[in-house]
Amino acid sequence: MSVSSSIPVSGQKDGECPNERLNGQLEFLLALDRLKGVERRNPVLGGARRENSAEHSWHAALLALFLAEHAAGPVDVCRVVQMLLLHDVIEIDAGDTFCYDVAANRDKAERELAAADRIFGLLAADQGGELRALWEEFEHGDTPESRLANSLDRFQPLLMNFNAEGGTWREYDLARSQVEARMAPIREGAPGLWPIVERVLDAACERGYLRRD
Amino acid sequence: MSVSSSIPVSGQKDGECPNERLNGQLEFLLALDRLKGVERRNPVLGGARRENSAEHSWHAALLALFLAEHAAGPVDVCRVVQMLLLHDVIEIDAGDTFCYDVAANRDKAERELAAADRIFGLLAADQGGELRALWEEFEHGDTPESRLANSLDRFQPLLMNFNAEGGTWREYDLARSQVEARMAPIREGAPGLWPIVERVLDAACERGYLRRD
Repeated sequence: MSVSSSIPVSGQKDGECPNERLNGQLEFLLALDRLKGVERRNPVLGGARRENSAEHSWHAALLALFLAEHAAGPVDVCRVVQMLLLHDVIEIDAGDTFCYDVAANRDKAERELAAADRIFGLLAADQGGELRALWEEFEHGDTPESRLANSLDRFQPLLMNFNAEGGTWREYDLARSQVEARMAPIREGAPGLWPIVERVLDAACERGYLRRD
Repeated sequence: MSVSSSIPVSGQKDGECPNERLNGQLEFLLALDRLKGVERRNPVLGGARRENSAEHSWHAALLALFLAEHAAGPVDVCRVVQMLLLHDVIEIDAGDTFCYDVAANRDKAERELAAADRIFGLLAADQGGELRALWEEFEHGDTPESRLANSLDRFQPLLMNFNAEGGTWREYDLARSQVEARMAPIREGAPGLWPIVERVLDAACERGYLRRD
């Protein structure tokens, strides 16, 4: 039995049309639940376990409420928050692709596009289209809002790894240059945070959390 | 060693003032991580495990992006999302109080106020005050936005429990009237969703997920 089919959604009676719009909203709501089961590589809670993509999305979205002042200029915080809430929902189908895994990243775009078609397609066209446009804006990263959103998406796991004595970095024996390249969009998207990135990377090398190049 | 003290935040040099504002933002960021370790009673993923408050906050905030049309009238969706992102952060100190536990709810307000003082106090006064005001608006529930936020905060676990064959309801042998009372704010905050609530409760009784009164 599919999870969503168990909800008495439509409530149609004899001759009444099913409420397709509401039905789609509840299908989408239940599909979202699955993001809590998508495991990322970086740790949380000082290394107690790996983070899942739902928790990560919450944390990154909340950062926008108090770190937006570090963007290069004025941004629509509301849009940044919405993008961060949504940016990983395609992982429900496509899974989390480890950012330092070159092979897995080759077909990432293709897998994620198919996921977007299915997942945003659960909603009525107007709502699905609106949310998909936010996801695409995040992916393209060519607006001040999407540049800030991409920066916070990277800044958050930087601090999670640092606070877990290196976390993923040590597990995969990463070099400073690899992490610095991954963080590079922060220079433009949230330049006020870049000095912190550099200090964290310096300290990570000193403590042996990251390999020096 | 406190988690936050390990981040090389301030970067002050001889004679330079520490950046207290940024320091507070990073302290707050790291404090938020702990919400991922606060366990709620309701299940996720069809009953695979309990939900934590960070995942719940993400899910509820995202609901506002496509369920706001079920509110009683026009709402500022941005504000609803922000409230839902923040509404549980006081649980970092105060823990999750099970909504059907009468005894634990007696000192809930006091514990949560002390938590709000400490947690929002990590930020500079302007930012801490702004985020605290959103939390207080959610708690008071007397604006259209906070009524919708409170509705979605209740609607989300309703569906999680139903999809886990009763979840918390069966575990605690709850009666339909108890859950209906808990859901009652949805009548005013998101009247368009109330028919779904009633159908879910009816179906839950039929399936033995909820005790009939």
